[in-house]
Amino acid sequence: MAYELYYWPSIQGRGEFVRLTLEEAGADYVDVARNPAMGGVRALLALLADESLARPPFAPPFLRSDGMLIAQTANILDYLGGRHGLTPRDEAARRWTLQLQLTIADLLVEVHDTHHPIAASLYYEDQQPEAVRRSADFVRNRLPKYLDYFERVLRLNSERSTHLVGNELTYVDLSLFQVIEGARYAFPRTLAKITRRCPRIMALHDGVAARPRIAAYLASARRLPFSEQGIFRHYAELDVA
Amino acid sequence: MAYELYYWPSIQGRGEFVRLTLEEAGADYVDVARNPAMGGVRALLALLADESLARPPFAPPFLRSDGMLIAQTANILDYLGGRHGLTPRDEAARRWTLQLQLTIADLLVEVHDTHHPIAASLYYEDQQPEAVRRSADFVRNRLPKYLDYFERVLRLNSERSTHLVGNELTYVDLSLFQVIEGARYAFPRTLAKITRRCPRIMALHDGVAARPRIAAYLASARRLPFSEQGIFRHYAELDVA
Repeated sequence: MAYELYYWPSIQGRGEFVRLTLEEAGADYVDVARNPAMGGVRALLALLADESLARPPFAPPFLRSDGMLIAQTANILDYLGGRHGLTPRDEAARRWTLQLQLTIADLLVEVHDTHHPIAASLYYEDQQPEAVRRSADFVRNRLPKYLDYFERVLRLNSERSTHLVGNELTYVDLSLFQVIEGARYAFPRTLAKITRRCPRIMALHDGVAARPRIAAYLASARRLPFSEQGIFRHYAELDVA
Repeated sequence: MAYELYYWPSIQGRGEFVRLTLEEAGADYVDVARNPAMGGVRALLALLADESLARPPFAPPFLRSDGMLIAQTANILDYLGGRHGLTPRDEAARRWTLQLQLTIADLLVEVHDTHHPIAASLYYEDQQPEAVRRSADFVRNRLPKYLDYFERVLRLNSERSTHLVGNELTYVDLSLFQVIEGARYAFPRTLAKITRRCPRIMALHDGVAARPRIAAYLASARRLPFSEQGIFRHYAELDVA
């Protein structure tokens, strides 16, 4: 039976990390909120409000599979990775892969808060001065710290591969690719500076982009464009590196 | 061999979630940065900078066990839970437990950002106006949303127990206990209002506090006090519900 992915229909957001793994796996899935025949976004909202669910999700994305409704991006990816050969079988390596994904999850919160430092429920325009201040720290200190870390992980990988874990593709490679795609959209000036010292990350990024299933996905209508509604938003005043 | 826990020596912080699980498990562990004989905080800093580690942590807490260095709180708890009977054996229930812990992790980021909405590297005093604004949203909207969710999870638990998952204690019960302890310290006025409608969470909290090993731990010198250095900080101007 096809996986059912539930995520906001008009943005990449956190759902995109799940989409990339489903696409690379060649998995049969339905993006429910983008599918009118499945009920569209109302089906997502109905599940969030469903008082009969014994294990309700707190927020999208969530995935229906095998009678389960699984939420939290890293948790979904660990589950899918195990079913589709996109995480190592070795227990220590699998846990390390999850650890790296959770570090990316931390980075994504910080990216989101560059444009929403006060409240997700307020418009950007209503927290712009604070956003400028928060972004200044993010582009100078936080984003470089995260990317230096992942460059170091690639350098220290004893397999000397273009992958973060061992010498085969895992879901966290796909996620790091997406971080670079997003950061290049949101913070092009900053990223141009940082990536000069992150050659291994850029090689990983280019390797993922060239994978046949990922390339086909990126060229398809299933890939939503970046916009000023998602996690990665481009406001020139925040890209001040 | 004893577990080695690495975390900042003077605060509860994220390390406290690991400490609570180790204590409830009755596990043999060393809190390295608080132990001069083990090198204290310098041992922690040395590991963070160690270029010979194949799998370096991004940030504390991390746990050394069985030749591994495991980071990310939820990842550590899933590992320890599996070894000490503090997460279900059933795969779906174990994943659900991790999902709940990751939701608590999201909440903790929001708690931290009430007093540091601009940059973790700046003093509170240098971002106080922004902190007041962010906290107003947190105490009115976000904290109630999270606690209503966990109350609902307890209500929907088909085992009708005082535990979040099934009818036995898991690490995420310990974590929710700590969230209530912290919120009661940082936001006493807000919490007094919210908890009236969260009787199941309060019953869980009191049940955890009464467990013999937890009670002994809380009464010991191993339990650090809350302070204005950790995640949960009390500033009266932020507790404005």
